[in-house]
Amino acid sequence: MTTYQLPPICILGLGLIGGSLMRDLTISNERVFGYTMHGARAAQRDGFDVSDNMEEVLRRAEADNALIVVAVPMAAVASVLDQVASFAPTCDITDVVSVKERVYDLIVERDMQGRYVGGHPMAGTEFSGWSASHEGLFEGAAWAVTYDYAREGLADDHWAALFTTVCRLASVVGAEAVPVRVSLHDESVARVSHLPHVIAEALSLVGDRGGTLAQSLSAGSFRGATRVASTEPELVRNMCETNADSLVPVLDEFIELLQAARTSLADDPASMKQLAESGNRAYLRMAARKGARRESVSPVKISSRPVMRVHPGAPGWVRQLEQVESLGGRVEVF
Amino acid sequence: MTTYQLPPICILGLGLIGGSLMRDLTISNERVFGYTMHGARAAQRDGFDVSDNMEEVLRRAEADNALIVVAVPMAAVASVLDQVASFAPTCDITDVVSVKERVYDLIVERDMQGRYVGGHPMAGTEFSGWSASHEGLFEGAAWAVTYDYAREGLADDHWAALFTTVCRLASVVGAEAVPVRVSLHDESVARVSHLPHVIAEALSLVGDRGGTLAQSLSAGSFRGATRVASTEPELVRNMCETNADSLVPVLDEFIELLQAARTSLADDPASMKQLAESGNRAYLRMAARKGARRESVSPVKISSRPVMRVHPGAPGWVRQLEQVESLGGRVEVF
Repeated sequence: MTTYQLPPICILGLGLIGGSLMRDLTISNERVFGYTMHGARAAQRDGFDVSDNMEEVLRRAEADNALIVVAVPMAAVASVLDQVASFAPTCDITDVVSVKERVYDLIVERDMQGRYVGGHPMAGTEFSGWSASHEGLFEGAAWAVTYDYAREGLADDHWAALFTTVCRLASVVGAEAVPVRVSLHDESVARVSHLPHVIAEALSLVGDRGGTLAQSLSAGSFRGATRVASTEPELVRNMCETNADSLVPVLDEFIELLQAARTSLADDPASMKQLAESGNRAYLRMAARKGARRESVSPVKISSRPVMRVHPGAPGWVRQLEQVESLGGRVEVF
Repeated sequence: MTTYQLPPICILGLGLIGGSLMRDLTISNERVFGYTMHGARAAQRDGFDVSDNMEEVLRRAEADNALIVVAVPMAAVASVLDQVASFAPTCDITDVVSVKERVYDLIVERDMQGRYVGGHPMAGTEFSGWSASHEGLFEGAAWAVTYDYAREGLADDHWAALFTTVCRLASVVGAEAVPVRVSLHDESVARVSHLPHVIAEALSLVGDRGGTLAQSLSAGSFRGATRVASTEPELVRNMCETNADSLVPVLDEFIELLQAARTSLADDPASMKQLAESGNRAYLRMAARKGARRESVSPVKISSRPVMRVHPGAPGWVRQLEQVESLGGRVEVF
């Protein structure tokens, strides 16, 4: 007899993230099926339980009491949620979309917040679609799990159980559940994910203007900073445009730092003292936060994120989540 | 009897680049010795022929008719060249400094251009010093080799032979000699190396301001674009400040692209259409230029740089270098 760690999982959208999730759940012997607009045949040929009929998939999710994972691009989320409302009206819902505030607004508009816990695995590659999906994508990655509903004091036992399930979903595929409010999530990913995407696009243009000679002379620093510019432009736009409220002020911060450097580099004598020293200190601070937790001599790979064991629904659990959030830590649910 | 491919090599400065060059030349059974201000004992303990007495090392270079490789930071180049003038007045000279115009100015001031061919291996890591040096650092890397003197029609047989030797030096350690004029070199590396360093510093600051939560949620795109911010600030300043004339206009191009994106992201509706699409196209153009040359089914790793066989000193050889330069190609000397 097989014991499942999770309810049946119904994934809507099988691109890089949704597809990789389906693969990982399958090798973990969980029950998983899904819908995809593109690539259903390829996924079926690969042996997965996939359909391109959304209504059929959702009716099955409702019958199986599955957890629905919304894994479509932001632009398609509203219409997918409308179909969930029609065909799977009692299913619990999570998602893997890269912005959380816009998704939550759509959830609230549909009065679905009592059966929704948001998610966002911080993993990906520069490739997209089912054909890019692969096992092990989430290993060691942070998986943001939102908890605004509980923070507002509205969570009942059902919601607490759903929160537990979403954390376990992350854990089953090797990721680490990081609790975070939607607004803080969006500001954080603007800094560490969306801004790097903007940079990669602009740097690719500046590099390309240097022609084949500049390209020939480019090495690791250029490669590292431009790699994600090969991401489908539609996906980059989706991320950046839907998170524009958080991204614009972060972009302003970044431009201001560059302008200050530009001014002092144009001085006589040219100087980049301030940016080089403060940037390096910032880098070392981040490295120290990570490194300090890597001192163990154990051969087991140890996460650099502090961990707190939390029992969702127990007294004080929301305060625990707030503490973990302030540390960028991870929760282990029990 | 050992046959050497190179004259004795005298390396001045044994940091990451100079030290790695010494290691590679040693395993290739070439004759190599050097000077370093820091780390001479560590290098001696590792079995290398190293001294911290510059005068002694240079007198030996003169006696051995060695090729001198200047591998000190830009700030120390002038004083090192003065000592070369005093103690090794007939030795040929090359260098591995990351800017070429400033070095060439110092060479011309000392009337050394008839015995100087500039070089710059496009390789490195975020670490520095002898302890960071290692074998294989230059494998497959571009090694810029300057040829302004020949372009001005001044090269005699001696200079052509020196050009051959410097290309061979690159080749012995697995790098590919890319001919380039000093001014074009400096503009190109501003685009593909110095700008990425500026970006890494500024992005580290923006990321660090997001605290441990943002750090915890960061993944590959952030890591890739910030890695080189761990480079010693002194080295970054040295590179960027000495190349400020080329870096400032490139930084202006980059800031302008970011400002345009910022404006359209702040619009209603937010848009990043132009930057996302043009940045991705630029990336794909670069990838296509590389990829087209990777179609071979041979298991041998093939360079993506077009190659031209050149005999330095032969009729038309300078025109050949100009052609190779315009393609970012590499030369094989014979």
